[in-house]
Amino acid sequence: MIDIRFPDGAVRSYEAGVSALDVAKSISEGLARKVIAAQVNGEVWDLSRPLTQSATLKLLTWDDTEGKNTFWHSSAHLLAEAVESVFPGVKFWVGPAVEKGFYYDMDLGERKITEDDLVVLQKKMVELSKKNSSFIRKEITKQEAVAYFEAKGDEYKLDLLAGLEDGTITFYTQGDFTDLCRGPHIPHTGFIKAIQLTSIAGAYWKGDERNKQLTRVYGITFPTQKELDEYLTMLEEAKKRDHRKLGKELGIFTMDDDVGPGLPLWLPNGTIIIEELEKLAKETEQAAGYKRVVTPHLAKESMYLTSGHLPYYQDSMYPAMELDGQKYYLKAMNCPHHHKIFSSEPRSYKDLPLRLAEYGTCYRYEQSGELFGLMRVRCLHMNDAHIYCTKEQFYEEFKAVNAMYLKYFDLFGIDKYVMRLSLHEPSKLGKKYVDEPGLWKETEELVREVLVKTNTPFVEVPDEAAFYGPKIDVQIWSAIGREFTLATNQVDFAQGRRFKLGFTTADNQQDTPLIIHRAPLGTHERFIGFLLEHYAGKFPLWLAPMQVKVLPISDKYLDYANSVAQQLKNADIRAAVDDRQEKIGKKIRDTELLKVPYMLIVGEKEMQENAVSVRRQGKGDEGTVAVSDFVQQAVSEIRERKSA
Amino acid sequence: MIDIRFPDGAVRSYEAGVSALDVAKSISEGLARKVIAAQVNGEVWDLSRPLTQSATLKLLTWDDTEGKNTFWHSSAHLLAEAVESVFPGVKFWVGPAVEKGFYYDMDLGERKITEDDLVVLQKKMVELSKKNSSFIRKEITKQEAVAYFEAKGDEYKLDLLAGLEDGTITFYTQGDFTDLCRGPHIPHTGFIKAIQLTSIAGAYWKGDERNKQLTRVYGITFPTQKELDEYLTMLEEAKKRDHRKLGKELGIFTMDDDVGPGLPLWLPNGTIIIEELEKLAKETEQAAGYKRVVTPHLAKESMYLTSGHLPYYQDSMYPAMELDGQKYYLKAMNCPHHHKIFSSEPRSYKDLPLRLAEYGTCYRYEQSGELFGLMRVRCLHMNDAHIYCTKEQFYEEFKAVNAMYLKYFDLFGIDKYVMRLSLHEPSKLGKKYVDEPGLWKETEELVREVLVKTNTPFVEVPDEAAFYGPKIDVQIWSAIGREFTLATNQVDFAQGRRFKLGFTTADNQQDTPLIIHRAPLGTHERFIGFLLEHYAGKFPLWLAPMQVKVLPISDKYLDYANSVAQQLKNADIRAAVDDRQEKIGKKIRDTELLKVPYMLIVGEKEMQENAVSVRRQGKGDEGTVAVSDFVQQAVSEIRERKSA
Repeated sequence: MIDIRFPDGAVRSYEAGVSALDVAKSISEGLARKVIAAQVNGEVWDLSRPLTQSATLKLLTWDDTEGKNTFWHSSAHLLAEAVESVFPGVKFWVGPAVEKGFYYDMDLGERKITEDDLVVLQKKMVELSKKNSSFIRKEITKQEAVAYFEAKGDEYKLDLLAGLEDGTITFYTQGDFTDLCRGPHIPHTGFIKAIQLTSIAGAYWKGDERNKQLTRVYGITFPTQKELDEYLTMLEEAKKRDHRKLGKELGIFTMDDDVGPGLPLWLPNGTIIIEELEKLAKETEQAAGYKRVVTPHLAKESMYLTSGHLPYYQDSMYPAMELDGQKYYLKAMNCPHHHKIFSSEPRSYKDLPLRLAEYGTCYRYEQSGELFGLMRVRCLHMNDAHIYCTKEQFYEEFKAVNAMYLKYFDLFGIDKYVMRLSLHEPSKLGKKYVDEPGLWKETEELVREVLVKTNTPFVEVPDEAAFYGPKIDVQIWSAIGREFTLATNQVDFAQGRRFKLGFTTADNQQDTPLIIHRAPLGTHERFIGFLLEHYAGKFPLWLAPMQVKVLPISDKYLDYANSVAQQLKNADIRAAVDDRQEKIGKKIRDTELLKVPYMLIVGEKEMQENAVSVRRQGKGDEGTVAVSDFVQQAVSEIRERKSA
Repeated sequence: MIDIRFPDGAVRSYEAGVSALDVAKSISEGLARKVIAAQVNGEVWDLSRPLTQSATLKLLTWDDTEGKNTFWHSSAHLLAEAVESVFPGVKFWVGPAVEKGFYYDMDLGERKITEDDLVVLQKKMVELSKKNSSFIRKEITKQEAVAYFEAKGDEYKLDLLAGLEDGTITFYTQGDFTDLCRGPHIPHTGFIKAIQLTSIAGAYWKGDERNKQLTRVYGITFPTQKELDEYLTMLEEAKKRDHRKLGKELGIFTMDDDVGPGLPLWLPNGTIIIEELEKLAKETEQAAGYKRVVTPHLAKESMYLTSGHLPYYQDSMYPAMELDGQKYYLKAMNCPHHHKIFSSEPRSYKDLPLRLAEYGTCYRYEQSGELFGLMRVRCLHMNDAHIYCTKEQFYEEFKAVNAMYLKYFDLFGIDKYVMRLSLHEPSKLGKKYVDEPGLWKETEELVREVLVKTNTPFVEVPDEAAFYGPKIDVQIWSAIGREFTLATNQVDFAQGRRFKLGFTTADNQQDTPLIIHRAPLGTHERFIGFLLEHYAGKFPLWLAPMQVKVLPISDKYLDYANSVAQQLKNADIRAAVDDRQEKIGKKIRDTELLKVPYMLIVGEKEMQENAVSVRRQGKGDEGTVAVSDFVQQAVSEIRERKSA
């Protein structure tokens, strides 16, 4: 008998040789229908592979990231099976799962694949999936494997084989298709109930442009048609809400070749949003006892040797500038500069917690192929702060930071979010992680306690902490269900020592502060990109670049319209008059397109009554009110930062 | 007879060979006593040199920069005369006028000069000055000159002679001292009535550290003792107000070796001042119809080739970073980025004037020896904006910019200022200046008209315009009379064309906008440095990092003090409680040192009456008032940005 330990700590005994699927069945038939792979001692396995020794076991379903990856990787094999059946003689390179779906790279010889071919292939995949063909794993010698692909004439797989050691090689077969593959896979093709091939691209073999260009076919699959439909609807909606499209239409940002890729220029409307977000952050942080600082955008090499950015993070930094025989680097993070402010004078326990905040601009080198609108950029305006505190203060400080995140989520109507709590792996202390077992245990428990006590949804991820402490990655979902990684929130008990930060304790000893790194609003770039999609460009009043537009029915009411706009401006409301000589219907339609929250329509009646007819973006007519009443209402809507 | 034309346009006839001094005497004896040199056809001459041809003539007095320079250069000769008489055998290198005074570099052999020696030398200078020795100019052949210094054994002067052409060499002699010198000089040593030798320094010959180190003696002189006394008092006061000293004491900024020289880190108190200044600028600019933008801190080489920064300005820029086979440079100015925003969409005359504003951070390379506190830095947060307008709009736009400068001067109590209007030189069109004679004439006249009509004090400086248009350098004087160059205000009709900026005119033609570059508040670095000195750290209430401190007489009143502080904070007043267990006298003294504008002292009586006893920084007791009255008064003082 062997002992199987489950994630909740329960242990059950089974005959040696039992499969994970057998285990699932032993628990419930319902579960057995849902599981698609298993995590055995942290490694993902086929469900059918026999367990010969005691082990920890996690049954994976579609809801697990590893489950999805297995599902999509198996779907890539299904795609290959379909391609081989439609285009015999095709040669294959690799077919991995990606963030959303999968692809397979292939050499179709002279043939060019078309959108029409995708329809045919997709149909073939559906047909093959219905055969419920099992994915059969076979350990094979290198010699046999080479012989197989030599016979098939597939030089790409032979190239892969050349890099593998004998004794580690496995084949997977479903239906008529056999692939060199490490696995794992789902039990059979019948799990793949909804299939969409999405696009075709060219991809150089091994990513090297001197090599032959292969054909890459992308697709995505789901366990139910409903999920695929929802996904396609979401994609459709996301296209309309694409932050690059809206960013251009609404005058938020622009890019310029002479400035460089990944370096957005913020236009006046984008700058208004930036300034409103900074105002929000400053107010929130001031109320929470933060102090603001301003630091330069570069520092000497010596700073980044102390911090450890050089050499560990160098690939993500801009290259050095040589000046006066010194190397200078653009900052990729604000922490070292803040640490220098901490150490610019002697500190005592009375100065702690010291919370230093800055909307600091960092520069990071992202590969140009990775750059994407505001989402992946090289210039980041970060809602950064560092909290220096004692161990005793840590719990309350971390709780306050968490509360700030939740307050922001509430303000922006972010209903779905999860904190990924990344923990250390004790066996890697002193290697991947600072060798402070006590501090790891203590801070991880405190962080977990905060999350539990505040009912914050979170998942724990082993062995993904930062070098210097546990960290939380914040994932949020936009109104249409797209996922964004917003920010990280980190505990740090290493940098304090590296920078020799110290404070005098109450009993006159020297101690090193704990540091919390936090950035609840992430970067302007990513957060405004997110907000554009989240609100589909229809910002709540307080954030809208143009808040109110006054629309005179004809030129006769232009003076009155201007006087209304002036009253709005006097109350610090961003307002303008549509003074074009256009019909009122066109003025309304154009203003709708610009997504201005309020339109005030003024004609004879309104002028006589010193009133305005109010139209709310997306809601239509809201009746006629006195100008002063509208101003009062708008001012309070702005002050309270109400969502629409 | 020759015609002499004066700066006011008047022309008088004189015998050929008349001297400038003769001309001065012909106007008035009083003037003749004041003049110390003459500008003849733009070149500075000795007063006694004969005028043999018709010319333009400006008589220079101590009040002219060129007058001061001549005075100080002559003082350097007087110093050399004194040194030679006290230390025979000394050899001389050069002795120029500098911004404030003069120096002379000399080789004293084995001798080390001391502070005591300075006293002796100064006394000797006074003695020699009283001899009223004339500075006598003599044209001399190179051969004779070389023979003279060979006989004297002065290899430094021989080195200078080696670089001069025969026929251009002159000697100047006063008393027993003769120097190789281009001149000009004041008429005689008797003009130098007040002398102060200020310091001794080492200086490598020709600035090259492989050469011998010479002794540099610094001094300053004035035409009256009163002026010297005022200068020394000002220096004394300036020392107390030194922005580096106050910056440290008040927690404004710090420097760090690992960050790098010339790169200040702004501490919380400095950041508050920065944010108040930015708020002021934003409010002012918003009311004036500016739009705000945010741009990255770097751009590709191609941008700076277009702008002309490369290669003309490269020495003042940070070196390139090589990325993806491209060179990137940190921006030294914000204009190119703003131009890119202008050109990011098609513009029509209806969009003009377009005013783009940004507190942009630029990086400039200053020699490390030139760096000085906040005054000369490598990182500049600039109150920048660019106004794109038509020729017809230019006058009003420039007038509005000028009005903004004057409004700021008034707000900050800057009573003494002058605009240096730098003009082009017509003979250098197409070389030093853009070849647009019409535009030069037009814009220079418009700028002059604005300055005249608004009674703005200004001086005209020929041949110092920017390449692309006339410019105004703004000079201001602090409360203690020290001069600062704050900002420049420039007209630009070249960059628009270089960046191919265009707009559609009302009659559907393409035209290029004129551009005004303006930065009334200069840079945070220099302006806050100036303000520290100007206010001696005693900021007006709206700018003070800590605005109000509540001082309980004893712990018994701590709760009440806290409640008062809370009421202040609720009204957005920066307030804190001095909760130390110290005597009230010490609390008051310490708070005075921190230069907090208001102290509120609370004890039994105040608590009973819900009141506070008010002490104003530098003014003392102002009596007891109700808390609510104080809050109201302080809020209005802040809102109106009153000076103390």
